[in-house]
Amino acid sequence: MKVVVVGGVAAGMSAAARLRRLNEDAEIVVFERDEYVSFANCGLPYHIGGEIADREKLLVVTPERLERQLNIAVHTCHEVTGIDRERRVIHVFDRRGKRSFEESWGKLILAQGAVPLRPPLPGIDHPKIFTLRNIPDMDAIKRTVDNGAKSAVVIGGGYVGVEVAEAFQHRGMNVCLIELLEEILPPLDHEMDRALIHHMERQGVSLMLGQRAESFHDANGQVEVRLGSGTSVRCDLAVLAMGVRSESSLAREAGLAIGERGGLVVDEHMRTSDPDIYAAGDMVEVTDTVTRDQAIIALAGPANRQGRIAADHICGRPTAYTSTQGTSVVKVFEMTAGGTGASEKTLKRKGMPYEKVYIHGNGHASYYPGTNPMHLKVLFAPGDGMILGAQVAGVDGVDKRIDVMAVALRAGMSVFDLEHLELAYAPPYGSAKDPVNMAGFVAANILRGDLEQWHAEDYPARTEGTILDVRTPQEFDEWHIEEAINLPLTELRQRLGELDRNQAIYVYCKSGFRGYLAYRILKQRGFSTVRNLSGGLQTFLLHRHVCMGCPETENPLITYAEDRHVTADGSA
Amino acid sequence: MKVVVVGGVAAGMSAAARLRRLNEDAEIVVFERDEYVSFANCGLPYHIGGEIADREKLLVVTPERLERQLNIAVHTCHEVTGIDRERRVIHVFDRRGKRSFEESWGKLILAQGAVPLRPPLPGIDHPKIFTLRNIPDMDAIKRTVDNGAKSAVVIGGGYVGVEVAEAFQHRGMNVCLIELLEEILPPLDHEMDRALIHHMERQGVSLMLGQRAESFHDANGQVEVRLGSGTSVRCDLAVLAMGVRSESSLAREAGLAIGERGGLVVDEHMRTSDPDIYAAGDMVEVTDTVTRDQAIIALAGPANRQGRIAADHICGRPTAYTSTQGTSVVKVFEMTAGGTGASEKTLKRKGMPYEKVYIHGNGHASYYPGTNPMHLKVLFAPGDGMILGAQVAGVDGVDKRIDVMAVALRAGMSVFDLEHLELAYAPPYGSAKDPVNMAGFVAANILRGDLEQWHAEDYPARTEGTILDVRTPQEFDEWHIEEAINLPLTELRQRLGELDRNQAIYVYCKSGFRGYLAYRILKQRGFSTVRNLSGGLQTFLLHRHVCMGCPETENPLITYAEDRHVTADGSA
Repeated sequence: MKVVVVGGVAAGMSAAARLRRLNEDAEIVVFERDEYVSFANCGLPYHIGGEIADREKLLVVTPERLERQLNIAVHTCHEVTGIDRERRVIHVFDRRGKRSFEESWGKLILAQGAVPLRPPLPGIDHPKIFTLRNIPDMDAIKRTVDNGAKSAVVIGGGYVGVEVAEAFQHRGMNVCLIELLEEILPPLDHEMDRALIHHMERQGVSLMLGQRAESFHDANGQVEVRLGSGTSVRCDLAVLAMGVRSESSLAREAGLAIGERGGLVVDEHMRTSDPDIYAAGDMVEVTDTVTRDQAIIALAGPANRQGRIAADHICGRPTAYTSTQGTSVVKVFEMTAGGTGASEKTLKRKGMPYEKVYIHGNGHASYYPGTNPMHLKVLFAPGDGMILGAQVAGVDGVDKRIDVMAVALRAGMSVFDLEHLELAYAPPYGSAKDPVNMAGFVAANILRGDLEQWHAEDYPARTEGTILDVRTPQEFDEWHIEEAINLPLTELRQRLGELDRNQAIYVYCKSGFRGYLAYRILKQRGFSTVRNLSGGLQTFLLHRHVCMGCPETENPLITYAEDRHVTADGSA
Repeated sequence: MKVVVVGGVAAGMSAAARLRRLNEDAEIVVFERDEYVSFANCGLPYHIGGEIADREKLLVVTPERLERQLNIAVHTCHEVTGIDRERRVIHVFDRRGKRSFEESWGKLILAQGAVPLRPPLPGIDHPKIFTLRNIPDMDAIKRTVDNGAKSAVVIGGGYVGVEVAEAFQHRGMNVCLIELLEEILPPLDHEMDRALIHHMERQGVSLMLGQRAESFHDANGQVEVRLGSGTSVRCDLAVLAMGVRSESSLAREAGLAIGERGGLVVDEHMRTSDPDIYAAGDMVEVTDTVTRDQAIIALAGPANRQGRIAADHICGRPTAYTSTQGTSVVKVFEMTAGGTGASEKTLKRKGMPYEKVYIHGNGHASYYPGTNPMHLKVLFAPGDGMILGAQVAGVDGVDKRIDVMAVALRAGMSVFDLEHLELAYAPPYGSAKDPVNMAGFVAANILRGDLEQWHAEDYPARTEGTILDVRTPQEFDEWHIEEAINLPLTELRQRLGELDRNQAIYVYCKSGFRGYLAYRILKQRGFSTVRNLSGGLQTFLLHRHVCMGCPETENPLITYAEDRHVTADGSA
């Protein structure tokens, strides 16, 4: 058996290595267009930023070691230029030796990944405009910074854009992040990225949201980025981080099936429309775990597993790749954010029914030092409570909650299961009632009819009636929703007579907990229409920051990383 | 409806609060023997140690706030001295007012917790011998330290003992930890606590393992602890952390069913043998998720949820408590350790069949700074691969892996599911192939027949044949198993002829990965009996540290927190 792998990074190298482990006799040949194989793709921004000082650390495995350990023939700087499915050969161009040749294959695995988008805008080929996909890209950017670049524009507020902006900021540069949308980090819903945007601004990054880069111009060796708004920004270098597209041109020319998203169509064993050709990694379309749509989700973990599954199937093993749920995490200076499953905007777009809850718990026990409130949003099905998605943004313990939710979603758990999750608790690590448990409690209360919510976005159009603030008078004086009246929870039982029983009552507090207690009292005392604000003012103000442009200094209730203080809400 | 709750900390207060939320009309009365309710039990050692400087932070909720927010009548310093099931009254002694009275109940919830063991050893009532259960205990210990105590003995190496020892060490005291067994942290298997023992010793704690405290004597106001070995240790104070027993005497006197472990017998709704009396928290026996045995597992999370379930059932709701899996975590200076599910010693004791794998992955990508190797052990069923338990010890990212395994176990996942878990990856948080995925890969390889293991404890009795070290000659020279021959993986294919085909071959490397590659080569080249050392020398040396008393300085392969260096094994 001879297997040829095109592309020697995550998916391709996982496939080749797994093949060898399963079959000592197979002839395994890998062609990689660039100079390096199996490098640490996700580490590139951190070498630019200086956190990873030693460049060698990014070069995980050398071709020589692959040859010696795994008996795999690895050819770097070899570009595959064509696939002849009839004759079962590929055309290869050796970029070092400047020669072309044919290579035969019995099975072919395509793992060419994705390429950064580079739209045909005027001036986009300016020599100081970069993309960041591989080691040479990284080297070129770093060299420019090392040579004294003082200012940078990053175009695109996705994970890579945010990481690169942070890297430049670490290098002491003036950094401007330009994003077409009014939000950053697309896997998150818009209210969940507010604290992150604020944090980036406090760290000195200029965020220009809702701005379109329209053209690029040279200005004495600098790049001038002109925006649709008429503004222009000058910088010593610019990085395009506008997303990626599947590297599918070779496959397309060979007549392999391409999906609507431009990625290769594969079956559960990673087989393309040609049963002898497999594909894996960022170039293929996968099924989204929650929406069941076909999607291109460029993530290292799934790429590695897909490569492994392709190898398994070639060796006659029935392992299957079921779906990608899009679990992701990103470091944003001192904060962390990420999620798993579907976002609210995705569920809306798909018309899938959902409910949602917000929890603002701490990373660990509030009385133990070093923790901060995090924002946790859980989306679930209204009927059976199945988990549809979760998002987290905060400082400490964020990645843990993402992973807990990722496993729960993968296991097909419901919010009722979240109530009973037995997570590890000691004060430095969590709380006896973890934020994930709390999300389960609140969500299950809703499904059992013990709690009805209103949401920040319902205000003001859908909150006609009494808006009732049940916090203390001191808290009320600090900031409150304009039309709200104040009736502290501790006096509510005695002062029910002051409320108009004919009006709907929209209760709120800071985090949602006291509001829930007020809801229970009011409902049991005969008030017919009562709603509690999900996540309290903490969620409300995350929304307002968008809708009303309310500057964060006016929001004493939003706690950011730098403040490092602990909120102690009334949860018992 | 009148509900009386006996005990006002985790389970009792959760029950009372939940009751109020579900029923605004219920009369709810809580009697707490001590001065404080709802305090942060698990935070006590950290106030002694000084990390939690402000004592008030431990007092989560005051009786006044419970009264005002939840309309619950809370009586502190009220000890319940008897239960009259006939007349449905309890006898109460008001410790402040020095008076006794009767209180009627419709439903009774017992949440009295557990008391620290205090065996009847000579001299154990010395005034400088303490236990740590509540705020007054903490105050007494802290006062003694504040008043100049310079040395402490902690008896018992469980979670509380280790936390208290660390607290004293933080206060600059000489600390000696005495433990009857040769190991600490009973939820962990003996090889998993080795790095922790070493770390504690490096931090200055004297560990005296396998030692029995037999008597206590006064020595000019100091405590002299005499051990079975004849040694004696003098200290300014001693803390007994020898475990706890269910506070079940009241229930026993009332004729409620008591289990074999001494805890109250309850059904899935937390009802005792009297259908109008409920019990929750550390005083009850629960079903162990994995072994299905009845057990007393004192943990804050389960206690809270049990209290909630008791309240639910009183209010006519069918919520059920299914089982406790024993998820736990402990901070040991800069290290973290814990686990979930059954340990190997438990599975052995129960005669339950199991397989195990060891993974020594990093907390996050090895090329990103600030990470360290962790030891991960996963126990699973030989047939279907169901997860039976997991243990983790390391520096960073330990609590996350415990929680991931805890959710997986609770979801009834198998090791095949671990292969496909889609966890959040970015270099500061994890690896594209997380240690949990790696455990799944290795375990699934075993179950699919792609890998056969040998274990550290098989040596030397069950390793007759060739012991083959496939590391580099440099690594071999540094340290190797005495009888081993060296044949580096990279030369194995060429030098197969040097191996005796008639002998069983016991392969090993450092972490298990290169050994696995060697295993695959040898098996496919016709060697009939081949085994790979699970977890490689890293696991082997954790075992040896016990079995051969090999001092850690001779084990260059064990990486401890202080070394802070990264091991890069051959994983691609």
